[in-house]
Amino acid sequence: MPRPEPDTDNAATPGAAAVLALLDQARALTNPVLRSVVGRLVPPMDTVAAYHFGWIDARGNPADADGGKAVRPALALLAAEAAGAAPETGVPGAVAIELVHNFSLLHDDLMDGDEQRRHRDTVWKVHGPAQAILVGDALLALGGELLLQPGTPESARAARRLNAATRKLIDGQAQDIAYEHRESVTVAECLEMEGNKTGALLACACSVGAVLGGAGDEAADALERYGLHLGLAFQAVDDVLGIWGEPAVTGKQTWSDLRQRKKSLPVCAALAAGGAASAELASVLAADAKNADDRNTGAENGFDEEEFAARAALIEEAGGRRWTQEEARRQHESALASLDEVKMPDDIRERFTALADFVVVRRH
Amino acid sequence: MPRPEPDTDNAATPGAAAVLALLDQARALTNPVLRSVVGRLVPPMDTVAAYHFGWIDARGNPADADGGKAVRPALALLAAEAAGAAPETGVPGAVAIELVHNFSLLHDDLMDGDEQRRHRDTVWKVHGPAQAILVGDALLALGGELLLQPGTPESARAARRLNAATRKLIDGQAQDIAYEHRESVTVAECLEMEGNKTGALLACACSVGAVLGGAGDEAADALERYGLHLGLAFQAVDDVLGIWGEPAVTGKQTWSDLRQRKKSLPVCAALAAGGAASAELASVLAADAKNADDRNTGAENGFDEEEFAARAALIEEAGGRRWTQEEARRQHESALASLDEVKMPDDIRERFTALADFVVVRRH
Repeated sequence: MPRPEPDTDNAATPGAAAVLALLDQARALTNPVLRSVVGRLVPPMDTVAAYHFGWIDARGNPADADGGKAVRPALALLAAEAAGAAPETGVPGAVAIELVHNFSLLHDDLMDGDEQRRHRDTVWKVHGPAQAILVGDALLALGGELLLQPGTPESARAARRLNAATRKLIDGQAQDIAYEHRESVTVAECLEMEGNKTGALLACACSVGAVLGGAGDEAADALERYGLHLGLAFQAVDDVLGIWGEPAVTGKQTWSDLRQRKKSLPVCAALAAGGAASAELASVLAADAKNADDRNTGAENGFDEEEFAARAALIEEAGGRRWTQEEARRQHESALASLDEVKMPDDIRERFTALADFVVVRRH
Repeated sequence: MPRPEPDTDNAATPGAAAVLALLDQARALTNPVLRSVVGRLVPPMDTVAAYHFGWIDARGNPADADGGKAVRPALALLAAEAAGAAPETGVPGAVAIELVHNFSLLHDDLMDGDEQRRHRDTVWKVHGPAQAILVGDALLALGGELLLQPGTPESARAARRLNAATRKLIDGQAQDIAYEHRESVTVAECLEMEGNKTGALLACACSVGAVLGGAGDEAADALERYGLHLGLAFQAVDDVLGIWGEPAVTGKQTWSDLRQRKKSLPVCAALAAGGAASAELASVLAADAKNADDRNTGAENGFDEEEFAARAALIEEAGGRRWTQEEARRQHESALASLDEVKMPDDIRERFTALADFVVVRRH
């Protein structure tokens, strides 16, 4: 499943202006360090990485492509502030998280055969599979290098947390691949996969920032839970958009997730709901799986718009859309409840809250 | 370039019996931990990894394939003993090194398109490219997890060294790929690549074992230099075998490295030597590179045995074979000189020396 970027186009939520300022600050503080660390790579990996981050185009000319929304770095810096330190204290954590995030994008795009990311050709399309593997490996190793560099107890604790999140990220991708070949996935399995694939690194951004800022493990764990719930809420919103989102808004095809046979939350919830629509959906997906086995084809199938619209209607009728929207709200509430477990200045708490609202409350 | 395994078939060197005992001990101490750590992976990654390590066959039945010679684990345990600790102290380091080594095998085999390793189909051939990428990533992350787990200053220092070696490993693979497309590579560039690709992890096995055993950074650095020179000596021997090795002994095709267009040490040294044979070799390789560009083909070309034999003769005539054999001896001597920088019990020093002799003095 291609990793969605937290979408921050919607400036209509309360505190949106503060969030935009927070994201700008995060980019300003982390981008120079990110560029400098990536510059440590030997050729041609430095060039391939610079292309991936959007700093140059496919011909090597300077570019200024969309490098992502900096939600993870912003969380790391804010968490350092929550621990009573300057935001700058969280910068190595923010950059390390970005490096690991981009490691997973490089490898997942290749594994999933995704040809486009952020409206540009993916690295494996431009520079070949070997460079996508190699540069992904290098970014992962750079992330560890950056955190372990200072040799302090805090940096080692942060490295350990980043390592644990990396393992979850990989688990999530393994589960995602495995689920594509199954007729049915339970809601619990789907939530676990999404928690690993989307939640773990947002969670880790919070805890690593907190640890670098001097927080104890208890506070770091609570902030990690905030980040996990934030990630799950975001993913639930994204799963709804993945089926019913307007192509003009999402930049994806209609029924995008259905085309890719994704067992996303609305599908899993609809299958678990019982009733006539649920049963019909189950039999449609079972037939799909059988056809795919017979033809041994990839994710694409020759269905037309009407077929996808009919499936989306079945999922909605079975309650999958409503359940997922409610799940987004539940996860959003859990994120705010986790915040309450940590002592921090009111203005920091308000920014965490605004960030959660901003990331979760999206057009749909 | 496929990674050669240190070859320990030759039991004719002095101290060979002690080395065989050392390798047996290393396997006995590390394999149970390796199996247990790999068991942490979620399905199907646990199965894919078990296939890679030779614990099961492609159908999932128990197997007992050659899992490698355990030279790296043996170095880690011996280095822990050199620092005055029990060999068991080095086990987490030995296992972490093996995990990182196997991460690189999984990814390199896929990048290089190698279909066989240790006389078995490689993971990407059996389980597909996505699983080779994913399980490689997982083994790398497991290596860090294992070292960071105890949360001690020693474990953090060891993790930092392993991370640095991983970066070198990746640099070496990047250089190796880049050099295949070049007409000519200097001896210095070749040594740097081989130091990264073969030397760094053997070096790291020594220093990580020493650090876990309680050694200071100075002693660990000296043992790291021993391991680096050992790796370079081993690789020089392997480079000679890669061209002139008997297929019956090496298990490879005749002129194996020439078939794969490798810029290994004999080739680089011959190109640098000057004289008529050197100039003729240079023009042959330049024509090769041009043909490859024109046809846009991979490593294979349609040459017959005579053509390869003629190239090997040119390399030998230019002095590339002799220079590489001398380089192996120089690196072997440097390894033993590095040993002299570290205080350790005589019996430990003798085993380090025996291991160097054993790995380097091979049939050729």
